[in-house]
Amino acid sequence: VGRWEPDARGRLERAAMELFEEQGFAATTVPQITARAGLTTRTFFRHFADKREVLYAGDEITAFARRLLVEAPHDLDPVQLVEQGLQQVAAERFDGRRDEVRRRRALVRTEASLRERDAQKRDDLAAVMRPALEERGADPLTAALLAELTVSVLHVAIDAWLDADDGRTFGEVVGSCFERLRTVLPAAPPST
Amino acid sequence: VGRWEPDARGRLERAAMELFEEQGFAATTVPQITARAGLTTRTFFRHFADKREVLYAGDEITAFARRLLVEAPHDLDPVQLVEQGLQQVAAERFDGRRDEVRRRRALVRTEASLRERDAQKRDDLAAVMRPALEERGADPLTAALLAELTVSVLHVAIDAWLDADDGRTFGEVVGSCFERLRTVLPAAPPST
Repeated sequence: VGRWEPDARGRLERAAMELFEEQGFAATTVPQITARAGLTTRTFFRHFADKREVLYAGDEITAFARRLLVEAPHDLDPVQLVEQGLQQVAAERFDGRRDEVRRRRALVRTEASLRERDAQKRDDLAAVMRPALEERGADPLTAALLAELTVSVLHVAIDAWLDADDGRTFGEVVGSCFERLRTVLPAAPPST
Repeated sequence: VGRWEPDARGRLERAAMELFEEQGFAATTVPQITARAGLTTRTFFRHFADKREVLYAGDEITAFARRLLVEAPHDLDPVQLVEQGLQQVAAERFDGRRDEVRRRRALVRTEASLRERDAQKRDDLAAVMRPALEERGADPLTAALLAELTVSVLHVAIDAWLDADDGRTFGEVVGSCFERLRTVLPAAPPST
C-alpha cells in the first residue's frame, strides 16, 4: 500500500461496514464503498476479492491459530493446548472489541451468504488445527475431535459473551464453556 | 408430483449427480440435468431452487433431528439424548449407504460453494437442537455446547467412517468419538 492511500484497507473496511448497516449488504455495491472511502475500485480489488471478503480479509484467525499451535510449550497436552490457545485468542482479538464484534454478528445474521461464509471460516480453522494437533502427538481421531470442539467452543463462547451483560471477559466465558463440557460429558454412563 | 413423471425427484437427483461427477459441478447446467433425466426445467424448479439444492433437498436431517429430540424418552440426560440420537441417525441414514455418502463427499470437496453449504447445513442442525435441548431441561449454555458438539461429532464420525476400511458401522464410529472425548477432556487439570 503506497503512502498516497494511507490506511486504504481500513478506510474501505469502515466504509463498507457503514454502508452494509445503513442500506443492507445486498444493496451495497463496490463503487458505493469506494466512493464513501474516497478511493478507486482498482484499489478496492487490490485488497479484497469482492464486497463479502471485506468482512473476512482482516480476520487472520487461521494464521493466528497456526502460529499459536506451533509456538506453544511442548509439555502441554492437546486439551490444554486448545484451551490456552483460545484464551490467547480471547485476550488478543476479542476483549475490548465487543461492540465491533456485536455489529459484525448482527450483519452476518441478516444475510445467508455471510452465514455460509462464517461457517466456512470455522471449517477452515478446524482444518488448520487438525494437522497441528497431530504434529504435537494427538492421534488423528483425537486431533479431528479437538479441532472441531475448539471451533465449537469459540463459536458458542462468542455468542455467550456478546449476549451476557455480566462484565465477564471473553476468556472467562471460554473457561466456563470448557468447565461445562467437563461436567456434562462424563455424566453419561458407559454406552450399553 | 403427478404419475406422468414417476420419481421425477429421484431421476433429477441421479442425473445431476452423474453430470456433476462426469464434468464438474460448475460446468453442469439445469437444462443438462433435465435433458439427462428426460424431464423439463419447469419440473426441475418445482423440486429444487437451483442445481446446488439438488444435493441438499433430499437431506431431511434437520427435521429428523427435531423429531428424535421430541420423541426421545424423558428420562435421558442431554448427553445420552444426543448420543442416542446420533446412533439412530447412523442406523437409519448412513449404514448401508457408504458409497453414496463417499461420492457426495468427494463432490462437495471440489467446490467452495458446496463446502459452504455443507457448513451451513451443520449450523442449521445445531440451531434446531439448541431449543429442543433447552425444552428438555438443559440450560442455554449447555444446550448450545451440546448442539455444537453433536454436529462436530457427526462431522468427524462421517469422515472417520468413510476413511476406515475396518468394517465398523457408523454407529460404532460415533460411539468411539464420544468415548474419546470422555477420555481426553477430563484429562486437563483445572484451569489456573
